[in-house]
Amino acid sequence: MANSNVSPTPLLKDELDIVIPTIRNLDFLEMWRPFFQPYHLIIVQDGDPSKVIKVPEGFDYELYNRNDINRILGPKASCISFKDSACRCFGYMVSKKKYIYTIDDDCFVAKDPSGKNINALEQHIKNLLTPSTPNFFNTLYDPYREGADFVRGYPFSLREGVATAVSHGLWLNIPDYDAPTQLVKPLERNTRYVDAVLTIPKSTLFPMCGMNLAFDRKLIGPAMYFGLMGDGQPIGRYDDMWAGWCMKVICDHLGFGVKTGLPYIWHSKASNPFVNLKKEYKGIYWQEELIPFFQAVKLPKECTTVQECYIELSKQVKAKLAGVDEYFDKLADAMVTWIEAWDELNPSGSKAADLPNGASK
Amino acid sequence: MANSNVSPTPLLKDELDIVIPTIRNLDFLEMWRPFFQPYHLIIVQDGDPSKVIKVPEGFDYELYNRNDINRILGPKASCISFKDSACRCFGYMVSKKKYIYTIDDDCFVAKDPSGKNINALEQHIKNLLTPSTPNFFNTLYDPYREGADFVRGYPFSLREGVATAVSHGLWLNIPDYDAPTQLVKPLERNTRYVDAVLTIPKSTLFPMCGMNLAFDRKLIGPAMYFGLMGDGQPIGRYDDMWAGWCMKVICDHLGFGVKTGLPYIWHSKASNPFVNLKKEYKGIYWQEELIPFFQAVKLPKECTTVQECYIELSKQVKAKLAGVDEYFDKLADAMVTWIEAWDELNPSGSKAADLPNGASK
Repeated sequence: MANSNVSPTPLLKDELDIVIPTIRNLDFLEMWRPFFQPYHLIIVQDGDPSKVIKVPEGFDYELYNRNDINRILGPKASCISFKDSACRCFGYMVSKKKYIYTIDDDCFVAKDPSGKNINALEQHIKNLLTPSTPNFFNTLYDPYREGADFVRGYPFSLREGVATAVSHGLWLNIPDYDAPTQLVKPLERNTRYVDAVLTIPKSTLFPMCGMNLAFDRKLIGPAMYFGLMGDGQPIGRYDDMWAGWCMKVICDHLGFGVKTGLPYIWHSKASNPFVNLKKEYKGIYWQEELIPFFQAVKLPKECTTVQECYIELSKQVKAKLAGVDEYFDKLADAMVTWIEAWDELNPSGSKAADLPNGASK
Repeated sequence: MANSNVSPTPLLKDELDIVIPTIRNLDFLEMWRPFFQPYHLIIVQDGDPSKVIKVPEGFDYELYNRNDINRILGPKASCISFKDSACRCFGYMVSKKKYIYTIDDDCFVAKDPSGKNINALEQHIKNLLTPSTPNFFNTLYDPYREGADFVRGYPFSLREGVATAVSHGLWLNIPDYDAPTQLVKPLERNTRYVDAVLTIPKSTLFPMCGMNLAFDRKLIGPAMYFGLMGDGQPIGRYDDMWAGWCMKVICDHLGFGVKTGLPYIWHSKASNPFVNLKKEYKGIYWQEELIPFFQAVKLPKECTTVQECYIELSKQVKAKLAGVDEYFDKLADAMVTWIEAWDELNPSGSKAADLPNGASK
């Protein structure tokens, strides 16, 4: 007999890893179990490596702590941040899958306006598997969505769209505000469910948040470096921003698309605005020079791979931002180290290199 | 005694005209009465000038038919389309107000998801009176809206935004599709209420629809020319598109913002796709050359007024698009005529020129 309750195979089950940076037991996974359990998790343990992180029963995962990172990358481990969730990008590097979804451990399942639990991962996968439209704006939002299309006046030659590299999801409840805004509006909550996915147009920069983010690792992975943050660095909370600005100029150059909007997750708890201010304050004035820099970046035609683009970008960072602060000189070097480490762990042509693993379940 | 039921003065009551192009009695205004009655209407009667258009009681309006247009503009009336709703732009020219709202007579009041009638005009006014953010994308949409703000990573220097020139509203029920899409998807209806207003980023073009559109006439009015369409012209249904592309490159040059999204109106009836195809088919292939042209347009620094930008644009149209079809040579001339007529009816410095009116109530 036909049974409509049979669960279909989850989308991209063997082609997607979920990367989670954490310093605590992963109880938050209980709520995500119906959606995440079929997938493989890569847990990047930040902070004290002697601490044992508990992962709920039944999840398939590998876990890397700082000792693992040091062992696997050797001296190149210097490019991976410590005591900052920026360490998550190590997970992107050791994954062998085509797609990555990364989520923070204070993010829970949100509900849509009808009260239904939102399968955030499923929506990200839809976003990644349908094209983007960076070259012309469609006023009815995502034209590939059921019930929608391109409107009158949209050139037909652009309706094929381009490959989607990144899907940036949003947050209900605690919005992703900087410390000054948190301080000024401590009670503001995001309650508005905007039922839209849209492509961020070409040549437009945006603030990419790493809380609820998916991307095509094969297309754009090497650009997803979350920089030097946290321990020993003069700045924090700009890891995802840095990755977003680098990634976007490279996507624009290579002709890939970036989407934002659905899915929402439920962001449970605002981080401490005083702590955040201390981490952010240099970023708040540095970004006034970073944005014009990224808006003006031109990558030469000769750069045809993400790695080539990223190395070229690191040179421009060194040449043009080292004057802002010596930190950017160091960051430019770390960008090169990151690419070297990426290529070491992901030799071109190999699909499943034989690499040392961390603790694996 | 305090009475909370006293109606407040409608926003911009004496600073906004509602422009309606029509060929029929304006019964549709009955549904809009609670929202439109306080405002002045400019009705542009298309087609046979001997026909009498009935306007429901109680509305304050002036009405112009083709005879009025010919009388007021003399030989320059050639730039105003006939037998096409593109004639509406004559209304922009004769208005003396700071703001314009234009709406088609087959558009009715839509309901929001809570079932409440949407005051489209009020939302447009909110859109126009708050700044736009064309230089950086805010992932939580309009940062000036109640309950929203700029997210982490949004440069503080850009948070003042820029003046908003245009507010482009959307449509529930019948989406604004071209003839091929209408033919392929005759039953598709837009049922998705997306609760968002967003700025179209700088350097990004979009398909501007004239059905439900508001703008700041003082900022951008002379760029809102709806071109040569309909009677005697080889093309129709590209009037608003043309205006949108011209307007957007000029807004980008002068640093004004363009918003799209809320408010929705209820678009009642799909126009005939066969008739539309006949009007559109040249536009469908011409636009493949128009879009690259508009994407590449550079306006010189010396152009500091909308009129100067528009005249410069007309020269580039003549130089670069006349080869696509001789129609664009004629259109470029009409663009110049339009600006001459605009300046004649709107002498600089004068706030209320003494001009001949059409039939006035």
